[in-house]
Amino acid sequence: MATPVYDALAEHHRRLHRLGHLGAIAGWDQAAHMPPKGNEARAAAMAELATLLHRLRTDPSLPERLAQAEQEPLSDAQRANLREMRRDHRLATALPDALVERAAIAAARSEHAWRAQRRANDWAGFLPNLHEVVAIAREQAARLADRSGLSRFDALLDLYEPGMTAAELDRVFGDLRQWLPATIERVLARQADRRPPLEPVGPFPLDAQRRVCEQAMRLLGFDFDAGRLDVSTHPFCGGVPEDVRLTTRFDERDFLGSLLSTIHETGHARYQQNLPRDWLGQPAAQARSMAIHESQSLAFEMQLAAHPGFIARLAPLLAEAFGAQPAFEPANLQRLLTRVKPGKIRVDADEVTYPAHVIVRVEIERALIEGEIEADDIPALWDAKMMELLGVDTRGDYRDGPMQDIHWASGTFGYFACYSLGAMYAAQWFAAMRRDHPDLDTRLAGGDFAPVFDWLHERIWRQASFWPTDELARRASGEALNPAHFKAHLEARYLA
Amino acid sequence: MATPVYDALAEHHRRLHRLGHLGAIAGWDQAAHMPPKGNEARAAAMAELATLLHRLRTDPSLPERLAQAEQEPLSDAQRANLREMRRDHRLATALPDALVERAAIAAARSEHAWRAQRRANDWAGFLPNLHEVVAIAREQAARLADRSGLSRFDALLDLYEPGMTAAELDRVFGDLRQWLPATIERVLARQADRRPPLEPVGPFPLDAQRRVCEQAMRLLGFDFDAGRLDVSTHPFCGGVPEDVRLTTRFDERDFLGSLLSTIHETGHARYQQNLPRDWLGQPAAQARSMAIHESQSLAFEMQLAAHPGFIARLAPLLAEAFGAQPAFEPANLQRLLTRVKPGKIRVDADEVTYPAHVIVRVEIERALIEGEIEADDIPALWDAKMMELLGVDTRGDYRDGPMQDIHWASGTFGYFACYSLGAMYAAQWFAAMRRDHPDLDTRLAGGDFAPVFDWLHERIWRQASFWPTDELARRASGEALNPAHFKAHLEARYLA
Repeated sequence: MATPVYDALAEHHRRLHRLGHLGAIAGWDQAAHMPPKGNEARAAAMAELATLLHRLRTDPSLPERLAQAEQEPLSDAQRANLREMRRDHRLATALPDALVERAAIAAARSEHAWRAQRRANDWAGFLPNLHEVVAIAREQAARLADRSGLSRFDALLDLYEPGMTAAELDRVFGDLRQWLPATIERVLARQADRRPPLEPVGPFPLDAQRRVCEQAMRLLGFDFDAGRLDVSTHPFCGGVPEDVRLTTRFDERDFLGSLLSTIHETGHARYQQNLPRDWLGQPAAQARSMAIHESQSLAFEMQLAAHPGFIARLAPLLAEAFGAQPAFEPANLQRLLTRVKPGKIRVDADEVTYPAHVIVRVEIERALIEGEIEADDIPALWDAKMMELLGVDTRGDYRDGPMQDIHWASGTFGYFACYSLGAMYAAQWFAAMRRDHPDLDTRLAGGDFAPVFDWLHERIWRQASFWPTDELARRASGEALNPAHFKAHLEARYLA
Repeated sequence: MATPVYDALAEHHRRLHRLGHLGAIAGWDQAAHMPPKGNEARAAAMAELATLLHRLRTDPSLPERLAQAEQEPLSDAQRANLREMRRDHRLATALPDALVERAAIAAARSEHAWRAQRRANDWAGFLPNLHEVVAIAREQAARLADRSGLSRFDALLDLYEPGMTAAELDRVFGDLRQWLPATIERVLARQADRRPPLEPVGPFPLDAQRRVCEQAMRLLGFDFDAGRLDVSTHPFCGGVPEDVRLTTRFDERDFLGSLLSTIHETGHARYQQNLPRDWLGQPAAQARSMAIHESQSLAFEMQLAAHPGFIARLAPLLAEAFGAQPAFEPANLQRLLTRVKPGKIRVDADEVTYPAHVIVRVEIERALIEGEIEADDIPALWDAKMMELLGVDTRGDYRDGPMQDIHWASGTFGYFACYSLGAMYAAQWFAAMRRDHPDLDTRLAGGDFAPVFDWLHERIWRQASFWPTDELARRASGEALNPAHFKAHLEARYLA
């Protein structure tokens, strides 16, 4: 049956994908290779492309064509794709160009100043910029809410996690919030009873670190014929599904940070590399959401990398790369990878304390966007919540307090929840895998990771955005997001 | 005075420049970093950008706007820019889209097959593809000629070397053609009387080679804050003036090929890096022509790199990188860098025999485009001309005969002349420099290369395309292209 309007829309999205490809590679190059004096010209080139893509995504003919395509005899998959096309158009047209531009300029200014202000612990200097990006984010939220009928904070959540709401966050984080402080205390008490792990002794030459990272990526199934590993200041997984550009950073004194970050990004990368090829360029072939993306990176970093089966494969690689030492014994690596230590910094947090960092942020940014508090109120709230949830004293330390992340500095509100939602989904996937493969741990212990990859490929990667997130989770694991699996995972690993 | 139409045209070209930036970086990445499975998506992305740029360059409103801008009160520089805008529009609109597409497809097919056919010395297999690309090139030449009033071959020459004609080539190559065979014999006889240079003894570790290349680039003033050195199969100078991406290739058994190629590309790179900043993105701020570009690379590779002053700086770097050996003595390096040896392969040729390779190609491609011969006639002509000009027997060897270059395989006719025109211009620049700085050789001998860079910067680099080529040459050196300087240079270096 002929579907000419749908077909033309699909070609429109293939075109967006092809042009976006150039931006993705130029963006990767900017972070990984670009010399400093290239910056101004690159920024101008990227802005030109962004303008072009925005014009294509907001083409005035799209609403009528989207409505016409609806009447065509589409398959279920095409209909799902049309739903995602509509979402893309809705997001692209939700905000007036002038507001988008004002937000970009304010974010760039604030972020630039924040880099120095953070180093100087200069909250007072940061505050005027924060006020401005909050004001703009509130205006964006209000306009998005008007358009979608969602509440303001929900409208921001929806940008990153379609369908997620504050009410749903209350459900999934609420219980965890009660349970977490006592659990952290129990885990700490238990660790205090044991000998602390031996620290690996460096230095760890960068060449050897790179070799180990590449070996770990191969163990995890990264396709080096369709991607690369490079170095950048902040690790990320970029490029396009056909050519994934993953980055890490190396520190001679510590190989573990780089290795775990590489394993994390490899989870993102395999999702990208295994999105459905026949549909590439279509909105339905994109990763489902940020939380689902994080569920892949955390399935690799938290679930798999700290599994005794993976550690058994890793240990000899470390000894070969850096020379044998007692710290590389599997039992010691296991203790290193599951060490719990409350601290001030989210990105350094272990998987047990990490959700506390996220909950602190989500509660504050929600109140901020809904207008219940102002930016000036953040430090006091931060200190109180960090003490309550983690027992950490953060008073007077803005640098490693509310100024530690780039998100707020650049006006990104509503994103933080995705990290912990991802950790919960990852635990849920592994619980479902164990149900589907009762011998899973035996196979992992034998160094056979294929059941994990096959399960994720079948249930998550190739499903891309063909289903709403709840439906994806139900089809993959039999239920929508259920935080009980995450709690059970932590109890099994840290308190059994 | 207000120049609104001109200003809008200038903004249009800045936009082309910004979008072209992304293509330049993606093209560099494709050659230097892209994993194999990225190829198909990259080709599609590059084609999408090419289509977009073509549409912008052929915008139907341009002819009227170009005419209107002509009436505005423009400065001389703006008027020169308008002239170059008009040329850009003329070239972009000269050929119908269908012919451009047919040419691209035929070139890609022919070039792809040629890679295997060349290895197999398979002229018969290559011939049908060559017939097709010649037929298309003739059609392109005919259409360009109709539009410009030039002859067919002149119309192709004009694509690479604006203003160059076959009659002008007769003038500059004619005399050289008579003079060259006897000169080569004299140089060979003279070399035969002397001890041959010592060959450097390898292997030459790739890391050390890279270090030497980077040191040579620094000696030559390459700005590493505005560019990089990477590795690709075929060395080139890419990127954008604000961020020049230079590539080389390394061979453990031979450092000299890579080093000289890097020095060559550094000449291109410094031209790019020093085009006038205030005008970047405008047609008048682009490099003048291919011959002028080659005059920069050859000024570095042939004029400067083989100068005793440069060799004196290079010798200790080689000893440091690879360990001292007699071959690295300056006098021996000098003999290595000025060794003359007629051979079959253009890219391996020395500066004395190189023009013979070019003349053979120019004579054949001119007859081919003008319809005086067919592709079948090439081997016999090739063999005869190579014997006449170089005394080299090429019979039966198509691989290192008429199949050696990618140019004809990909349908590029009219380019070869630029290489030798560039060598002639380079000699002319150095003759003018010596007139302007009578102490030039003393300063070079003392390791002070600034007079060369300053002269080129002032006379060539910052002049970009503000003058027609002849006028550029006259303003730089007091006369239009004069082949006598090239002959004088060879006589001074090889027969004095």
